[in-house]
Amino acid sequence: MFLLNLLIILGVAAFGRILSRKLNQSIILGELLFGMILGTLGIAEVTPLISHFADVGVLLLLFSAGFSISMEEFKRQGTSSIIVALLGVILPFVLGFYVTRFFEFSFLPALFVGAALTATSVGINASILGEFNMFKSKIGTLIIGSAVIDDVIGVLILTILGGIAAAGGIVLENLLLTVVGIVLFFLISLTLGIKLVKKLSSRISLRRNDLMLFGLIIIFLFALAAEKIGLEIIIGAFVAGLILAQSHFSRDILEQAISFGEAFFVPIFFVTMGMGFDFQAFGSVGLFAAVLTGVALIGKILGCGLGAKLSKFGTMGSATVGIAMVPRAEVTLIINKIATENNIIGPDIGSSIVVMVIICTLITPPLLKKVIRSYEEKKG
Amino acid sequence: MFLLNLLIILGVAAFGRILSRKLNQSIILGELLFGMILGTLGIAEVTPLISHFADVGVLLLLFSAGFSISMEEFKRQGTSSIIVALLGVILPFVLGFYVTRFFEFSFLPALFVGAALTATSVGINASILGEFNMFKSKIGTLIIGSAVIDDVIGVLILTILGGIAAAGGIVLENLLLTVVGIVLFFLISLTLGIKLVKKLSSRISLRRNDLMLFGLIIIFLFALAAEKIGLEIIIGAFVAGLILAQSHFSRDILEQAISFGEAFFVPIFFVTMGMGFDFQAFGSVGLFAAVLTGVALIGKILGCGLGAKLSKFGTMGSATVGIAMVPRAEVTLIINKIATENNIIGPDIGSSIVVMVIICTLITPPLLKKVIRSYEEKKG
Repeated sequence: MFLLNLLIILGVAAFGRILSRKLNQSIILGELLFGMILGTLGIAEVTPLISHFADVGVLLLLFSAGFSISMEEFKRQGTSSIIVALLGVILPFVLGFYVTRFFEFSFLPALFVGAALTATSVGINASILGEFNMFKSKIGTLIIGSAVIDDVIGVLILTILGGIAAAGGIVLENLLLTVVGIVLFFLISLTLGIKLVKKLSSRISLRRNDLMLFGLIIIFLFALAAEKIGLEIIIGAFVAGLILAQSHFSRDILEQAISFGEAFFVPIFFVTMGMGFDFQAFGSVGLFAAVLTGVALIGKILGCGLGAKLSKFGTMGSATVGIAMVPRAEVTLIINKIATENNIIGPDIGSSIVVMVIICTLITPPLLKKVIRSYEEKKG
Repeated sequence: MFLLNLLIILGVAAFGRILSRKLNQSIILGELLFGMILGTLGIAEVTPLISHFADVGVLLLLFSAGFSISMEEFKRQGTSSIIVALLGVILPFVLGFYVTRFFEFSFLPALFVGAALTATSVGINASILGEFNMFKSKIGTLIIGSAVIDDVIGVLILTILGGIAAAGGIVLENLLLTVVGIVLFFLISLTLGIKLVKKLSSRISLRRNDLMLFGLIIIFLFALAAEKIGLEIIIGAFVAGLILAQSHFSRDILEQAISFGEAFFVPIFFVTMGMGFDFQAFGSVGLFAAVLTGVALIGKILGCGLGAKLSKFGTMGSATVGIAMVPRAEVTLIINKIATENNIIGPDIGSSIVVMVIICTLITPPLLKKVIRSYEEKKG
């Protein structure tokens, strides 16, 4: 049973991946969609074992996200990326929260839905920028910088929400404790942690095949540390990424973490997220899902677009930034997983989020193409 | 709990690995020994999840073993390696069986103990040959060839024993079915399977990061196929390795399978095998363990040495071959795991096998050094 189940899930992931590449789409899309089909057909099961595999995938994703943030780049970026990211977080969060409340869901789920709308997917974002040859342009740098920053914000929001969920509501004392925990965790990790890692990494000469074992140990160590002080484990993995990026074997670890994750744990995460899609539950909240997707689009386009405008980009440039920031994936689905597993949201909201992720990802490239074309026509 | 447990096991593996490298020993040794300490201290637990991780490690190990067998090399090797391997399988098997029976264990456990003594560890063997600069020599080629062949025989024996264990004893009909199953499985896999893989691998151009996902799918697919026709799943992984070695992206997959396995699944396997060591149970069969280790040594030295002698090697050369074939590890421990999980052997025999593995691995380099020195003195 164990083998067959695993094989079906991996097979579906592989199939989704091949098809996505053929259709020039993000591989996440294929993995999610085929996961949805798999879940609806009911021929595979998300056993506790599979769910644990997916958890490791989540940690690896957050580790890579943390790793992608280069401190130097961060300082160099200046304020533009921060403004774009912040407005692109606030507007979707507020819209998501109020839409969920409007559809008569309660306070806590509304907070998590809001949070789920905040983070642009760096992975999908980067692949789309590559497709449009925008990587090295001024706009491209702004977009990817903002996407990375809103990941940080998304993880912070989730961690704070985790504290609220544990307390069963907003208790000022607990909220304060969580924030203090986060600040201390970052402070200690980014000072003492980086020093320690730099020292260790210059002393121990690890073989290529040992690198990932040590990387995983550090990921799990930080995840555990985060858990012990009452934070979400993913913030630990994220900080582990931030820190290991400062070690002298940095690039090798990131490369290995990505191929290690992509071979097994990460596709299992995306397929099982698709499998969580519940056709019936989704049908009962169809309108909610549609409105949610709408505000997910509008929130990012307006929020990030406004941010770009404030940073002195033209109208078309600002529209490009706004649209490019629309795709959501990993962080949104991680928030979905955590909220579902803690019974904060049900299959209705969960399925709506999965559909929102798929539509946002699907819609971005054609929208972007349109804006860029009219932009160039104007210039020409 | 899940994170802490996993972290302790991985941490112990990493520590054992560093120490092994520092002391110029096989990393398996360190992982096993520290696993034993961990098990005795009782601060980590082999949960079903951890055991499943180890199972994946087993499949990856067998896959790599199958992969290392190049068909061309196999044909070129001629009969010498086969004779050395065969005699080095038969003698330890017979000795192991009778010693176990002599100590009044029953028939089935005795068969599995015999099987556990058959396969030389290719991994440890190769690292020792490298240390002694014997890789490219005539003797070195013979040794590594024989070690690879006795892996095949060991896996075959285990598969047959699996059938016997399932039937609860030697039932001629079942035995025949297993053998026919093995023959058909190999035949179909090595003809149709290779053709299919060659065709597919020339058509699909996989990205580097997709390679291992597809590799894993093929491993699980063959493992499942083997299970479905009543064979051990490890023979499926082994055959998957044989076949994928024939695809045009072969080297990349092997390299990735090794680093994928070594980062997580394989060290978990070795550490948990060490954790299975039971101090008390071992104490109650101390004499058995000592005798078992003795026949493990004698069986390989005499059996393989005789094989080399028959292949016209001198006395000292034959002794070198015999000693170099002493180390046991992966296949032996896999047989141990399967026999333990099927309640065929208890912690007493299981612990004895772990100790035998450790002593055989520890004793080989100094013994080899002694023989080679007196060999060179004679020549000089």
